[in-house]
Amino acid sequence: MSERPRTPRPRIGITVGDPAGIGPEVVAAALRALAGEGLELRVYGDLEAVTRAGGALPEGTHRRFASAAVEPGAPQAGAAAGIVGAVQAAGRDALAGELDAMATAPLSKEVIGAAGFAYPGHTELLEELAGGRAVMLLVGRGLRVALATIHCALRDVPGRLSAPHLVGVLEVMHRDLERRFRIAAPRIAVCGLNPHAGEGGRFGDEEERIIAPALADARSRGIDARGPFSGDSLFHRAVAGEFDAVLAMYHDQGLAPLKTHAFGQAVNVTLGLPLVRTSVDHGTAFDIAGKGKADPSSMIEAVRLAVELSRNERGVRDEQ
Amino acid sequence: MSERPRTPRPRIGITVGDPAGIGPEVVAAALRALAGEGLELRVYGDLEAVTRAGGALPEGTHRRFASAAVEPGAPQAGAAAGIVGAVQAAGRDALAGELDAMATAPLSKEVIGAAGFAYPGHTELLEELAGGRAVMLLVGRGLRVALATIHCALRDVPGRLSAPHLVGVLEVMHRDLERRFRIAAPRIAVCGLNPHAGEGGRFGDEEERIIAPALADARSRGIDARGPFSGDSLFHRAVAGEFDAVLAMYHDQGLAPLKTHAFGQAVNVTLGLPLVRTSVDHGTAFDIAGKGKADPSSMIEAVRLAVELSRNERGVRDEQ
Repeated sequence: MSERPRTPRPRIGITVGDPAGIGPEVVAAALRALAGEGLELRVYGDLEAVTRAGGALPEGTHRRFASAAVEPGAPQAGAAAGIVGAVQAAGRDALAGELDAMATAPLSKEVIGAAGFAYPGHTELLEELAGGRAVMLLVGRGLRVALATIHCALRDVPGRLSAPHLVGVLEVMHRDLERRFRIAAPRIAVCGLNPHAGEGGRFGDEEERIIAPALADARSRGIDARGPFSGDSLFHRAVAGEFDAVLAMYHDQGLAPLKTHAFGQAVNVTLGLPLVRTSVDHGTAFDIAGKGKADPSSMIEAVRLAVELSRNERGVRDEQ
Repeated sequence: MSERPRTPRPRIGITVGDPAGIGPEVVAAALRALAGEGLELRVYGDLEAVTRAGGALPEGTHRRFASAAVEPGAPQAGAAAGIVGAVQAAGRDALAGELDAMATAPLSKEVIGAAGFAYPGHTELLEELAGGRAVMLLVGRGLRVALATIHCALRDVPGRLSAPHLVGVLEVMHRDLERRFRIAAPRIAVCGLNPHAGEGGRFGDEEERIIAPALADARSRGIDARGPFSGDSLFHRAVAGEFDAVLAMYHDQGLAPLKTHAFGQAVNVTLGLPLVRTSVDHGTAFDIAGKGKADPSSMIEAVRLAVELSRNERGVRDEQ
């Protein structure tokens, strides 16, 4: 695509993540792949690691966060402050309107945890920085899947579900699918918790006790929330276009079908925050870092989706 | 395919399932589709319902189980005895060597339950009839997924997992993948229970406490059991050919990716019993029964896979 003179160039902050992981090389590849797309790309993090991975920084403002001499595949707790600082700086710039959106390469919970940062991941870090109720949505090959619970033990999932929580998640999904994805009256399919959505109470009662009442409440607020459906047989209906998004009750219920359908091409989007943030769908992959094996597709798609979501949101604001 | 004079025609019993569901029409369509494939197809159940659905019964032995005047879409408890009787008769004929395999159209747990039969489904019914440890395996578009637990509430899943149970399931998978699927030294990938397979104990301890010890035990018995892997990101590796089968810990973890990958084309196989049984991957679908909307693909594939599995098993026996 060529630059469009009438539209300002989208300013996208890209964070490098853990410099010992595949972040530097997928960021380097994304800078190359996106060079002709009329974007203002600003890199936050270990700029030298990106350069070493073959990335040429485009002209413009970048923010360097030092991480000493980290080697690919050898993570160091000493790099944690720079990794976290880069994400916080990009987040603050997005909140201040200096960036239109941010796209993040992976960090390691272990590395930042060992250095004393208590964030399970980017999402929680940005939730604290920006305020709001973060909802994780994965997008890949036409399928959009949000999660009602994320990183907790399977045995703790039932206890974390409540009607107010689900209604809150559905409100975030509804609003952000409208304003950021430009989907009018989005159709949201909701999974049951139990096999066959409990089959009328035969295998668990959370559908009748929690999920169905939450859906009734959401519908009374104008949200097109459908279900609860059997979690094994609704994703192909979403792929076929019957729903605009799926809300899964827990991690593997939503991400196993999504990643089987679109592995390596999926993008993680954080809904519900007052900034636009996308991310890759993979981790730091320390085992293959620096070996030229990392697939940059998800990083490239994460930047492109960040551009699209921020354009959509700006369009909605301009109309108001 | 033409008949092969040197091989006896495979004798496959097809049960009609609930005559008020889509069973009669998918069986009728399968009889038409398979007519030229040199099989001896024997139908068990409501033969009139199959005829009304446009099915011509091939010459040979069929077994009629009456179900009064059941209309499509209007299930009746009065039909239950015939439905169950047909499955039991086919199962007995398979055990007696009168059939090489059986393929079942769907029945409704509610209908047979209301009539006082205490089976949650075919699998349990055949387990009681035939003896053995039944393991449910779904096969579709190159992906094979078995389940460690099936129809129980999600909150009960962690309590149903134990190392001896998992080792038993892996032994059944290993043996039947070898003898029925003709896969030498099958590579079995095993899912964790928790997100990211617990991420080193951060989200749940069942991986360290139960699953990893079970895999070590299975490997000591010569089974190539790998993992536990994060349940969201191993199915695409199986699709790509890295594993021959996946063992999921619970229903939606295994069936959501399988059905997203291969909806309508998947076949359910019962491993671990002294008879070969396949089944469709869908239910009775009373809401569309008799309307000409049912897709017979899964029924057709179920019969073809039953032929293949029984041929393989006979081949293994002949070699011994």
